[in-house]
Amino acid sequence: MNSPKTKISSSPADFGLGNVTQRVEIHNLPLQSGKSLDRITLAYSTVGQLNREKSNGILICHALTGDQFVASPHPITQKPGWWDQIIGPGKLIDTNRFFVICSNVLGGCMGSTGPASVKPDGGEVYGLSFPMITIGDMVKAQVGLIDHLGIDQLFAVIGGSMGGMQVLEWAAHYSERVFAAVPIATAARHSAQNIAFHEVGRQAIMADPDWREGNYQKFGKVPHRGLAVARMAAHITYLSEPTLHQKFGRRLQERDRPSFGFEADFQVESYLRHQGSSFVERFDANSYLFVTRAMDYFDLYAERGGILSENFRDIKTRFCVTSFTSDWLFPTSESRAIVQALNAVAANVSFVEIESPYGHDSFLLDLPEFHQTLSGFIEASARIRGIA
Amino acid sequence: MNSPKTKISSSPADFGLGNVTQRVEIHNLPLQSGKSLDRITLAYSTVGQLNREKSNGILICHALTGDQFVASPHPITQKPGWWDQIIGPGKLIDTNRFFVICSNVLGGCMGSTGPASVKPDGGEVYGLSFPMITIGDMVKAQVGLIDHLGIDQLFAVIGGSMGGMQVLEWAAHYSERVFAAVPIATAARHSAQNIAFHEVGRQAIMADPDWREGNYQKFGKVPHRGLAVARMAAHITYLSEPTLHQKFGRRLQERDRPSFGFEADFQVESYLRHQGSSFVERFDANSYLFVTRAMDYFDLYAERGGILSENFRDIKTRFCVTSFTSDWLFPTSESRAIVQALNAVAANVSFVEIESPYGHDSFLLDLPEFHQTLSGFIEASARIRGIA
Repeated sequence: MNSPKTKISSSPADFGLGNVTQRVEIHNLPLQSGKSLDRITLAYSTVGQLNREKSNGILICHALTGDQFVASPHPITQKPGWWDQIIGPGKLIDTNRFFVICSNVLGGCMGSTGPASVKPDGGEVYGLSFPMITIGDMVKAQVGLIDHLGIDQLFAVIGGSMGGMQVLEWAAHYSERVFAAVPIATAARHSAQNIAFHEVGRQAIMADPDWREGNYQKFGKVPHRGLAVARMAAHITYLSEPTLHQKFGRRLQERDRPSFGFEADFQVESYLRHQGSSFVERFDANSYLFVTRAMDYFDLYAERGGILSENFRDIKTRFCVTSFTSDWLFPTSESRAIVQALNAVAANVSFVEIESPYGHDSFLLDLPEFHQTLSGFIEASARIRGIA
Repeated sequence: MNSPKTKISSSPADFGLGNVTQRVEIHNLPLQSGKSLDRITLAYSTVGQLNREKSNGILICHALTGDQFVASPHPITQKPGWWDQIIGPGKLIDTNRFFVICSNVLGGCMGSTGPASVKPDGGEVYGLSFPMITIGDMVKAQVGLIDHLGIDQLFAVIGGSMGGMQVLEWAAHYSERVFAAVPIATAARHSAQNIAFHEVGRQAIMADPDWREGNYQKFGKVPHRGLAVARMAAHITYLSEPTLHQKFGRRLQERDRPSFGFEADFQVESYLRHQGSSFVERFDANSYLFVTRAMDYFDLYAERGGILSENFRDIKTRFCVTSFTSDWLFPTSESRAIVQALNAVAANVSFVEIESPYGHDSFLLDLPEFHQTLSGFIEASARIRGIA
């Protein structure tokens, strides 16, 4: 598949999103649904310098509730970048050597065009009139960004969870532009159970009267409670039973004995409530609806008559696939299916299932075995690609 | 522990709950919280006849959203009793031989006293002023019922999930009154992950403005949306990923292609929405809060300085413990902990982990291996007890 036919203009960043955010405008983006979006913005951040050969670009794709603040402090939470641990000068992804790019996904709410954006005619915000977007559409917008940056071939595209879906989409549709692909803790299609969990979250948001059929911005409202419940349910799926047991067990929160009431008696309840309420500060409810839906629609099997490997025929991209033993949201069986499809077309793929008790969120944590796997693959690929 | 000091009176059933529901009134029930309840009602159903020796009583304990309609059609849904498959004349639990009793739990909403009940002074409904109840309190009320029925020792106490917690509570505190105990797919304490899922459900209910701080009955409202979301989230935990995959996969609901919208495109969404909306017809939101909380508080370790086996020292009750391979809500490890505690005090216990793809709800399904296990244990125990 070719790059989208897009006109691109760019302007210095602002958005109140910190000085690391830049933006690119794409004048027309045809969407998988058949609709199209005019004048979309992608907000992105970069770290490091593009080399003369333009061969050292690494695109990091973020997960459902991630954003472009991958290696710089988040402007709202002030927390370090979400992958600060592995990206930076001298780190695993060494920004003295690599040019790291991370854009907020289409449909997101940190500067990229999404349902909370004002329509291009300068009138109302989109709200539910925003067209449904897919993982394919998100990636098509990223292709526009990479075009804009003048990069023919990315050295690597890396991402976990929904980020991993984007990695697979890049490999399936733009493989000539990806030297190495690192899909982490992900799947080539969203499972029934995961669709079910997403549906619970969406129903929680839509059940909040402050959602106002998606028009809350017009009314100066935010569906805090619904979005918090959605986040709480999702957050459980990012962890694991052993982690929750080890971290909280049945320990009580600031009391010696149960209150015999509905306060947050247990530490795990207080933790979850905090996860819910802090999420609301930084995420838009309609974005949550659209982006979860994009994940639900993701299905690389369906596009090729049910045969996953057909996406990867004659592919030259090198793959490193990883999963985590305790991840029950994107279990190892999903990664194995990807590897089997790649093997079926004799693609270059390594696969490691990392031992970890921390569940799906493992890819965001400091796990030496995982980091060694990533590092080994990146170093070997850089040698082959001739990156100093 | 002795039976609760209770005065008992009974009266013929009605409640609009069908002619199988009977009721018993207990005049005072001291609760684990230190509070007490005056004049509580337990609604119950019985099938079969108590024999002359009063040795053939089997108490069935229901799960979170179950009720006393264990072997007779449900008056609201008109569906067969929830364990109709195994209870009845000539069935696994043969009501030609056994006298089966099942009561709606204290805190429930099918005729037993709970938060939706009118206070004994005839004034308002309890709502959130209902005192917090525990699994121990539920069982204490059941002891009152068994006293009322003139039964010294039950032949068996059987239950799955929250019903299994009640079985363990009977064994731990009233073992001399239980000849055989069958805790199924349960745990001796509620796990952090399970508390977390319950908390999501409670927050969903409390986020619904129609909940009105628990006073919805006064306002003629029902927090439909919150309760439906709570049920949807919980329902996922009752199934398994393989079941959802097999049952629904990514199949679309009454359409050939995705709508690219927020309708229930996928069958699994439509199924979940139905689960949510139909649950609201038959369950009270405040009951859901209180009964989930009772499960969260359940912890047989805590009562004995962290040593589970201390609950069962010198116990003569025969145990049959079962779990299901794909049950991730009450995984086999929880049953194994119960068995290890029973072994540590040389109790009579058999343990079978049943191979099943259907998740936690397996105990409600027609699984031959499970039914053979139950049947073998019941028959052998009946021989030992001398029941014809």
